Amino acid sequence: MSGSDNPVSSAPGPGGFQGPPGTRDLYPDDVLRSRYVTEAWRAASIRHGFDEIDGPTFETCALYAVKSGEGILGELFQAFSGKSPEERQRVRETGQAPYALRPEFTPTLARMYAAKAGSLPRPTRWFMVGPFFRAERPQRGRLREFVQWNCDVIGLDVDWLPVKGAAPDAEAITRAKARADAEVVACCVGAIEALGLKSADITVRIADRNVTAAVMRACGVPDARQGDVLGLLDRRAKMPPAQYAQAALDLGFDAARLDSALRGLEDQVNAALGDREQGRSPAEPRDDVLRPLFALVEELARQGVARWCRFDFGIVRGLAYYTGMVFEVVVDGERAVAGGGRYDNLIELFGGPPTPAVGFGMGDVVLSLVLVDKGLMPGGKALLEALESPVCRANLRPDVFVLPSPAEGMEALVRPLLGELRHAGLHARSSSRSTRNLGKLLKDAETACARFAAIIESPDRVTLKNLDTREEHKDIPREALPSVAGSRRGALRTGGAMGDPAT
Amino acid sequence: MSGSDNPVSSAPGPGGFQGPPGTRDLYPDDVLRSRYVTEAWRAASIRHGFDEIDGPTFETCALYAVKSGEGILGELFQAFSGKSPEERQRVRETGQAPYALRPEFTPTLARMYAAKAGSLPRPTRWFMVGPFFRAERPQRGRLREFVQWNCDVIGLDVDWLPVKGAAPDAEAITRAKARADAEVVACCVGAIEALGLKSADITVRIADRNVTAAVMRACGVPDARQGDVLGLLDRRAKMPPAQYAQAALDLGFDAARLDSALRGLEDQVNAALGDREQGRSPAEPRDDVLRPLFALVEELARQGVARWCRFDFGIVRGLAYYTGMVFEVVVDGERAVAGGGRYDNLIELFGGPPTPAVGFGMGDVVLSLVLVDKGLMPGGKALLEALESPVCRANLRPDVFVLPSPAEGMEALVRPLLGELRHAGLHARSSSRSTRNLGKLLKDAETACARFAAIIESPDRVTLKNLDTREEHKDIPREALPSVAGSRRGALRTGGAMGDPAT
Repeated sequence: MSGSDNPVSSAPGPGGFQGPPGTRDLYPDDVLRSRYVTEAWRAASIRHGFDEIDGPTFETCALYAVKSGEGILGELFQAFSGKSPEERQRVRETGQAPYALRPEFTPTLARMYAAKAGSLPRPTRWFMVGPFFRAERPQRGRLREFVQWNCDVIGLDVDWLPVKGAAPDAEAITRAKARADAEVVACCVGAIEALGLKSADITVRIADRNVTAAVMRACGVPDARQGDVLGLLDRRAKMPPAQYAQAALDLGFDAARLDSALRGLEDQVNAALGDREQGRSPAEPRDDVLRPLFALVEELARQGVARWCRFDFGIVRGLAYYTGMVFEVVVDGERAVAGGGRYDNLIELFGGPPTPAVGFGMGDVVLSLVLVDKGLMPGGKALLEALESPVCRANLRPDVFVLPSPAEGMEALVRPLLGELRHAGLHARSSSRSTRNLGKLLKDAETACARFAAIIESPDRVTLKNLDTREEHKDIPREALPSVAGSRRGALRTGGAMGDPAT
Repeated sequence: MSGSDNPVSSAPGPGGFQGPPGTRDLYPDDVLRSRYVTEAWRAASIRHGFDEIDGPTFETCALYAVKSGEGILGELFQAFSGKSPEERQRVRETGQAPYALRPEFTPTLARMYAAKAGSLPRPTRWFMVGPFFRAERPQRGRLREFVQWNCDVIGLDVDWLPVKGAAPDAEAITRAKARADAEVVACCVGAIEALGLKSADITVRIADRNVTAAVMRACGVPDARQGDVLGLLDRRAKMPPAQYAQAALDLGFDAARLDSALRGLEDQVNAALGDREQGRSPAEPRDDVLRPLFALVEELARQGVARWCRFDFGIVRGLAYYTGMVFEVVVDGERAVAGGGRYDNLIELFGGPPTPAVGFGMGDVVLSLVLVDKGLMPGGKALLEALESPVCRANLRPDVFVLPSPAEGMEALVRPLLGELRHAGLHARSSSRSTRNLGKLLKDAETACARFAAIIESPDRVTLKNLDTREEHKDIPREALPSVAGSRRGALRTGGAMGDPAT
């Protein structure tokens, strides 16, 4: 096999033919390295119970304009059929084509969800991995064609619209959103960890649009100016402090006061996060606007990823459509490899029913550079073996379907156990139904084609049921479950975490 | 998981947003079915010793014009950067954009090969699976965006250019081309068979541009008219016989005479194919123009795919760049699912050194319809299990590297054994070197990261050497090799062919 030396640029051909600037020619070794990343994404998604979808590589320009305005079309690669006289005429007259190469997946996802919302599960967990395009000038870490992983949880496992006139339970909705938010963070972290990165290298920086908005309001920023202030906060890291302070004054607010208010709230949530990591129960939030984030702390801890996270209310995320929690995954405090957040209004904007949703995108370019820089990109035989291992190959049949026994308090143990199984490289799922009926839950396990059902009998004892053979193994210690269930799987690295696949 | 009912068209969204006509929205069940096909392609390619590459989704229009003329641009989706004032200006003035969404892979492959020809192995075996685009009106079996598998063998394992003034060995080149031609046919058949299709359903129809050209010349068609006549032959199946005969007269040749000459030659090669299938040595060809096809018959038999093939000199294949053998894979005598052939001049056209090459493309749309129609598209648990099986997951490390012992006549047994191992679902490779030095050949096996080396000691005895542990097992009966080597591989279906994965 032969590979190019530079994974991010096309080599010029001696015959004068070159690929377009900002695109890549992938020779065999390049493809293997690319697949190491994309298959780790895919395997993490499957392990975490997400189903794969895909859409067209190009969409109508109208689809992108609905969310971001006509201005976005100036940032895209536009396309038209060379065979259609109408389309060619239109391009000549207006300089604008009917289609655009997809720059992001969310509009396609929203369109696809809207088209079938009535028949989709609640929540729907979708992921996709595919090529995306942007018309920017190519530079290190930014290409015109790149591969992106998208993961989204759409809808909630509780009622979020009034049912028969009864108002929805606000507290239950807050908790359900926190569960979904933590699920996408856990899936994201799952891939990062499988690729060998450690929590010392990576921070998931979390903020919340509603908290920032409340603080802005308290600091006297009028609602109409909030967009401008968010834009300024987003650019802040690239500005000298004095320039930032002046720009703040120009927008009519006191930078120091805003900072101090944000910092005060941030400290409260980070203290709660610290408490939960130490196994202590956090205090109640002093400000009601922090309740959703305290619920998120609870879920991040329950899903086993609290130590990867830190609240940082300086995070804004450029996209205006976020409505709640936003996050960024940052390497060594500087390079962002992924970003996302909650977008509760977007499905409706694309013609679907009002539907809360949360998701993130991760590109391959910066992530691959990070892996190479840290010596985590395997080569030769180690690369081939990693591509054959659970790091890159999840079983499509769920290895384990986790369900609570009817005993009191077992539901709360489902998510921690899912986290442990996934951490061990197993594809683990659970039911979205809030029933204690074991028969119904086992039916869900069979519908999912799971190999095993793990029934939580007590905090430390599990019954494992082989759904193909009906054999039952009772009284399995909970900490032994990953290796017992995993022994069915030939390639499994038993004994805990998937570890560093490059060594 | 939830899937769309119709795998080939976008569902209209209730909010009015639809995907572009002729593109697909793939919901989870659709993605699983799509991956069943694409991963079977990928696994067959890997088993047959091909390495994966990929290129940009769009290329410069100039790249497509070089092979097919400017006219081709009217058949393509063209693209430009909405951010570049120069590109927008050019599109407004000329109605033509600088880029096109790729309609086929060969120009990219030729460009990539040309850029690194000096450092690539001889032969280079490349495959890719990815999205392609054409601007045609969508209809059943023809979409505007589809997925295509491409497989190519570029270069030969013998010298094809004069070395130190010595003329190349024409006979050796003919045999080497036949080997490469049979390799791509065997890889193509390998995927088709893994997907459950039988040789009763499928025919690889083979012709040769040089044979057709010689017959045309003998029938008095001037060289300058040959292109027109090939075009007529290509359209023939869709014309009433009288209309065809008249069109032939208009082009200045006697249709009946041409037919009868082609049929006579076709019968000779098919007789040779039949002889080889029965284990008899075929007679020598009566016409020298058939020598390359007789060599191909020999190689098809040696690689175990003769029973899938039939010579049909009515096959033309539209593309003008073929220079020798051409083939089409036809289901039930009517639907073509793949096509390809030898294109010895194309690498040079794209700026590389003169390099013989052969390859094919297979699209996902017709093939998926065929699998559904024949009840061969699995669903539910069977689909998930097929996606986890060797049908869809080849090991990237070669399971077995086959080499001849230094004893006389063992080289000729390498390819039949490779065919048997691949048929059993194993990734099998061999060296391209024509040496009997066992040390050098074992070194090749290690460079390829193979798990086992299989040394052919005699027509029915093999030594199996574990290259990780250095353990040797001598005197293994050749027919037991697939199951012995395969037992290392957890998921292997031992005991012969991969069989019908849907059952």
